[in-house]
Amino acid sequence: MIMNTSKNDNYSSNCESLGKFFIPTKKDSDEFSETAKLMMKSGMIHKLSSGIYAWLPLGYKILSIVEKIISDKFEDIGFNRMCLPTLHPASLWIETGRYEVYGKEMLKIKDRNESDLVFGPTAEEACVDMVRNKIKLHDLPVKVFNIQWKFRDELRPRYGIVRCREFLMCDGYSFHETEKDALDFYDNVSEAYKEVFDELGLDVISKPAETGEIGGSKSHEFLIESEIGEDTAVVDGVEKSFMELGHIFLLGTRYSEPMNLKVTNSENKTNALVMSCYGIGVSRLVGALVEKYSVENGINWPKNIAPFKITILNMCKDSEKADKTCEKIRRKFSKTTYIVSGKKSPGEKFAVSDLIGSPIKIIIGNKQLESDSVEVRVISDKTHYIKIDEIIDFLDKVI
Amino acid sequence: MIMNTSKNDNYSSNCESLGKFFIPTKKDSDEFSETAKLMMKSGMIHKLSSGIYAWLPLGYKILSIVEKIISDKFEDIGFNRMCLPTLHPASLWIETGRYEVYGKEMLKIKDRNESDLVFGPTAEEACVDMVRNKIKLHDLPVKVFNIQWKFRDELRPRYGIVRCREFLMCDGYSFHETEKDALDFYDNVSEAYKEVFDELGLDVISKPAETGEIGGSKSHEFLIESEIGEDTAVVDGVEKSFMELGHIFLLGTRYSEPMNLKVTNSENKTNALVMSCYGIGVSRLVGALVEKYSVENGINWPKNIAPFKITILNMCKDSEKADKTCEKIRRKFSKTTYIVSGKKSPGEKFAVSDLIGSPIKIIIGNKQLESDSVEVRVISDKTHYIKIDEIIDFLDKVI
Repeated sequence: MIMNTSKNDNYSSNCESLGKFFIPTKKDSDEFSETAKLMMKSGMIHKLSSGIYAWLPLGYKILSIVEKIISDKFEDIGFNRMCLPTLHPASLWIETGRYEVYGKEMLKIKDRNESDLVFGPTAEEACVDMVRNKIKLHDLPVKVFNIQWKFRDELRPRYGIVRCREFLMCDGYSFHETEKDALDFYDNVSEAYKEVFDELGLDVISKPAETGEIGGSKSHEFLIESEIGEDTAVVDGVEKSFMELGHIFLLGTRYSEPMNLKVTNSENKTNALVMSCYGIGVSRLVGALVEKYSVENGINWPKNIAPFKITILNMCKDSEKADKTCEKIRRKFSKTTYIVSGKKSPGEKFAVSDLIGSPIKIIIGNKQLESDSVEVRVISDKTHYIKIDEIIDFLDKVI
Repeated sequence: MIMNTSKNDNYSSNCESLGKFFIPTKKDSDEFSETAKLMMKSGMIHKLSSGIYAWLPLGYKILSIVEKIISDKFEDIGFNRMCLPTLHPASLWIETGRYEVYGKEMLKIKDRNESDLVFGPTAEEACVDMVRNKIKLHDLPVKVFNIQWKFRDELRPRYGIVRCREFLMCDGYSFHETEKDALDFYDNVSEAYKEVFDELGLDVISKPAETGEIGGSKSHEFLIESEIGEDTAVVDGVEKSFMELGHIFLLGTRYSEPMNLKVTNSENKTNALVMSCYGIGVSRLVGALVEKYSVENGINWPKNIAPFKITILNMCKDSEKADKTCEKIRRKFSKTTYIVSGKKSPGEKFAVSDLIGSPIKIIIGNKQLESDSVEVRVISDKTHYIKIDEIIDFLDKVI
């Protein structure tokens, strides 16, 4: 029963306050890309298998912040959120002919009755099945989206959650009476995508793209320049590497025709609906954000994405005054305050704080405490020395 | 290209306002149980395959309300939310010996490289893998939970989402230094479960249970009396049918020992951690709620669970005043107002409203409009006639 502690010693955990939050940071990681390495070191993700990751509490916090930004924007432009299952009956994919042509990235499964299932790499068929026989003319347009785990059996998963196999995707679907209606809404969604990327501070370009195995008559990719991007595009005459973050398709009747998704219009004619689909890689977006906001030794999150807006570094050992000040702030900003305290050295505490990347860092040291003050560093601003009595008011202003 | 409209005619859709929301209600369903039938008729769920369902916008709204109530409670008692993947490498299940013994309910999968994966029917192994080598003594207790889709390949899926194959589960895991710490927290979680069920208005009993294939030394089930329950328990000397909504287990070292999840304590001894796990069937809970709150012809949601707190029945055709009144209310309570309007008969409009089940129903009719009023029915209260000018203030009070 001798424990192998060699791996364990690499980890440094930091949840010693009442509001415990499990962030097992570590000093190094054998991941290949800087982005994946940083996500491993800061305790955001854990690798279970090739291309299959768990999201630890810190990573999940970021993932859910990004998910909410996307979800809110989709709802703003009239999408209804729903949820499709991860597994689909193969029969639906056979209806559109995609079961045979999709290739090895599609994970095919047999259940206990030898029935064929598919772990959805995307969900056009499942969505059409959900709405067919239910849409009437006056319902149109119908716009639905879901944020659900997908699986693509990548030949060579890499870069952590950037090119993994199980990933979180936001996939929206819209159904229209005419091609013109579909095109108008396609442009709305394209605009909404830009607003999402702007909100996240990402410089994303959109460019016309091939429709590939998804099909349809028109499509745009949303790309960000990236060291670990695997798409290339010529921008300003120079070929650069890009990472694909989103892709939208005007599908036309590619799915509605074979799956018999039709409505009878006002002239009593029965036509297949015009369909579009819109995808954003939610988990991959987190990778793009980590790459964008990474700095030497850690990360600098902007306020609207930061998993913790405030990190308190308690440099004092056994100081009741310091503990009370931590607790005072944590009680007021409980969901967004992380406290680094305990027996670690100041250098170790700063290292952890750098990995968590809060835009506001409060340093509680013996010297400042003597004058009833704490040091507050606000990223992209400057360092302030604030009286303990005034700290809550100050944070209310800068948070 | 002749369309078969026989099935379509069964549906009646009702989203003709600016804030469109796709609720394809229908007059009947061939589901066996009353609960599943009601969920189908009210456009909450769609069956893709045996035991595999999609959650349409109305159903998803309820599912996410229930999810949030559970998630908030788990966070209140110190759990950190995280996210485990749906697919696990078989190797983890081999470590604990469960790969061979779990039985046919476990969905086994081979990927393109012939590696063995499992669609998690539960996730003890995945969670232990996520935290092992990362927990140090001062981190304890570590409490994490996730709300993720699980798959159990039921021999006979039935009752819609109550006994399905792909289902949403909240599964929490805690790790402690001692059995006593684990027991204390086990009691806390048990209390939190009761608070969740109280908040949902469900009469749930807890009783000691077998630990089964999950293992451990102590376990409690949380049961609700149900017509479609498949567990039985003797209460007040009478045997009744119950549905299992939750199950908690004190696992001890059943997983931490074989998977080498250990810490070195203050006496420099290295011990396996004491582990517990806590499950709640989130999607099944929705079934229990539908059963509990169903009434003749529909459902009566309490305010804290209602997907739409307000349903407006616009009985007027081509009345600008009626349309404006609808719009005024919708703009103020946009996320929680559903409008039934259009050419349907009053009877059809009431039928749809009954299926949506809002606790506040506003009826806009020509007669009341003449005196600038609308009729407001507040469930468990009475009918009010309110001046249009005062409707927002009134709703602010009763919502």
